Amino acid sequence: MRCKQCKEKAVLFMPAHRLALCKGHYPSWFRKQVQRAIDRFRMIRPGERVLVAVSGGKDSGALWHALHHLGYETEGLYMHLGIRIEGYSDQSYEAVCRLAEKLGRPLHVVDFQEELGMGIDEVRGATNRPPCSACGLSKRYHMNQAARRLGFSVIATGHNLDDEAVTLLNNVLAWNTEFMVRQAPVLPEDEGFVRKVKPLIFLEEKQTTVYALVEGVPFERDECPFSVGSTNLHLKDVMYRLEAHSPGTKRRFVEGFFQWRAQWLDKALKTKPDLRACAVCGYPTTAEVCAYCRLKAQIQRHLTIVS
Amino acid sequence: MRCKQCKEKAVLFMPAHRLALCKGHYPSWFRKQVQRAIDRFRMIRPGERVLVAVSGGKDSGALWHALHHLGYETEGLYMHLGIRIEGYSDQSYEAVCRLAEKLGRPLHVVDFQEELGMGIDEVRGATNRPPCSACGLSKRYHMNQAARRLGFSVIATGHNLDDEAVTLLNNVLAWNTEFMVRQAPVLPEDEGFVRKVKPLIFLEEKQTTVYALVEGVPFERDECPFSVGSTNLHLKDVMYRLEAHSPGTKRRFVEGFFQWRAQWLDKALKTKPDLRACAVCGYPTTAEVCAYCRLKAQIQRHLTIVS
Repeated sequence: MRCKQCKEKAVLFMPAHRLALCKGHYPSWFRKQVQRAIDRFRMIRPGERVLVAVSGGKDSGALWHALHHLGYETEGLYMHLGIRIEGYSDQSYEAVCRLAEKLGRPLHVVDFQEELGMGIDEVRGATNRPPCSACGLSKRYHMNQAARRLGFSVIATGHNLDDEAVTLLNNVLAWNTEFMVRQAPVLPEDEGFVRKVKPLIFLEEKQTTVYALVEGVPFERDECPFSVGSTNLHLKDVMYRLEAHSPGTKRRFVEGFFQWRAQWLDKALKTKPDLRACAVCGYPTTAEVCAYCRLKAQIQRHLTIVS
Repeated sequence: MRCKQCKEKAVLFMPAHRLALCKGHYPSWFRKQVQRAIDRFRMIRPGERVLVAVSGGKDSGALWHALHHLGYETEGLYMHLGIRIEGYSDQSYEAVCRLAEKLGRPLHVVDFQEELGMGIDEVRGATNRPPCSACGLSKRYHMNQAARRLGFSVIATGHNLDDEAVTLLNNVLAWNTEFMVRQAPVLPEDEGFVRKVKPLIFLEEKQTTVYALVEGVPFERDECPFSVGSTNLHLKDVMYRLEAHSPGTKRRFVEGFFQWRAQWLDKALKTKPDLRACAVCGYPTTAEVCAYCRLKAQIQRHLTIVS
């Protein structure tokens, strides 16, 4: 397969776009897609500083690199989850540090061991809660709190098209409409919440991987050890089959949903919950104490009993 | 595996129901499920005669048999599609005749060769239209017209849970919301349209097959030759994987959709199209001439040119 622009050897063929590009032309095409998503959904305001949530993986690494080279003023936020299995968190942290250095941009770190009193891999033993649920909750919490503390009005995350399609399929299979309402390219700022944006929303996992490889973005190749055997991986396989049978399926699925969501949203949001400040930390919540503070309290009780 | 009721050898284990039953206890359980769907969605009014659309396959055969044994006054409607490949239509017709005889109930036949001037397998050559599209259109048309002519106010079709889940998945993947609005256990009567009901909506294909086998319902085992390699078969495989990974997925998917649809319907139906009578046949349509009469005219033109 040859590059459409210069006939050099192509580094990637994209059936849904009917496009093959070489390693010289691919990165700028990729960044143009990122810029297009940012413009279309008005993700970032002119002159706005962007906090990029980086995990050490290829997606968020490619995102930080692309935003930086598109001229955005970015800083990184790494959440050290304290997962010791196979040295996962330390290795991810190392990749993120190398990227920050390569880009010459500041990196902020939230350490779960310090914040929660233990790493995510110990949470199940302490609270009987599945690690992915505690992890998601804590990451959302700290992402928002760090952005506010550091004076950012927008956080960018590395969710790609495959992630969005799998999440949507999972939600649609059970018609979890309250989750579906919250699935969007942009979650606008709201009382106590910083705007959250997904500039890679229409880029496939394969595309972010190739960008990271071609641009020499350092990233950790191992998946999170807790993801093995998860429903998400199963749905990813299902989505892969659907896409292989009919290229463009993922994009149609996610794009069609966003259009439908926009029509339906005004009705759905009538049921928007009343938020108040958490009695412990001030984070917006529907309860007296927010879910994160309750998790933390549960861990504290466990640690007191054990010690 | 043993029957939950009598400890005899089970004929079917249903993981989503956590239930195994023997061939003595299975048929009455199956019919109870049919009755439950009829009651829940008010499919059939007391004393109402039911026209059952039978294809010669296991689903519609099981449906006719079950409705008859539940005490409904039923008659059959067979549409002879004129598919000569592997003798498909003739063999299906033979199975339907044997079932009608077994039940001692009248069978009505619509012959596509007579009505359209050709069998469905010749339509592509004449109109360049995919056979499944012409077939669906013609079946919907004749089903409704036959019911009206024969004085029935309700038609029952053999769509099972697998069919519904696959159709829904196909519609959801492209967010074909205008098709989704029309996907329901009951399509109510409307000007010119007879009510259409799906009493097998929550029964799986495997369950209708076992019912047909245990009750000795004659049916044609071959699938329609045009279904080979279709997107529907691909989606069926995908649904099978989803169900195997998490039993009950199909049911949650379809049931959740119906609940969501009910909330959303009042809004969606505001865009209901204006119907008028087809200038040729009087069938309700949004156009001057209905899609079936246009298909028929196209075929007639082809036949005139050829002869």
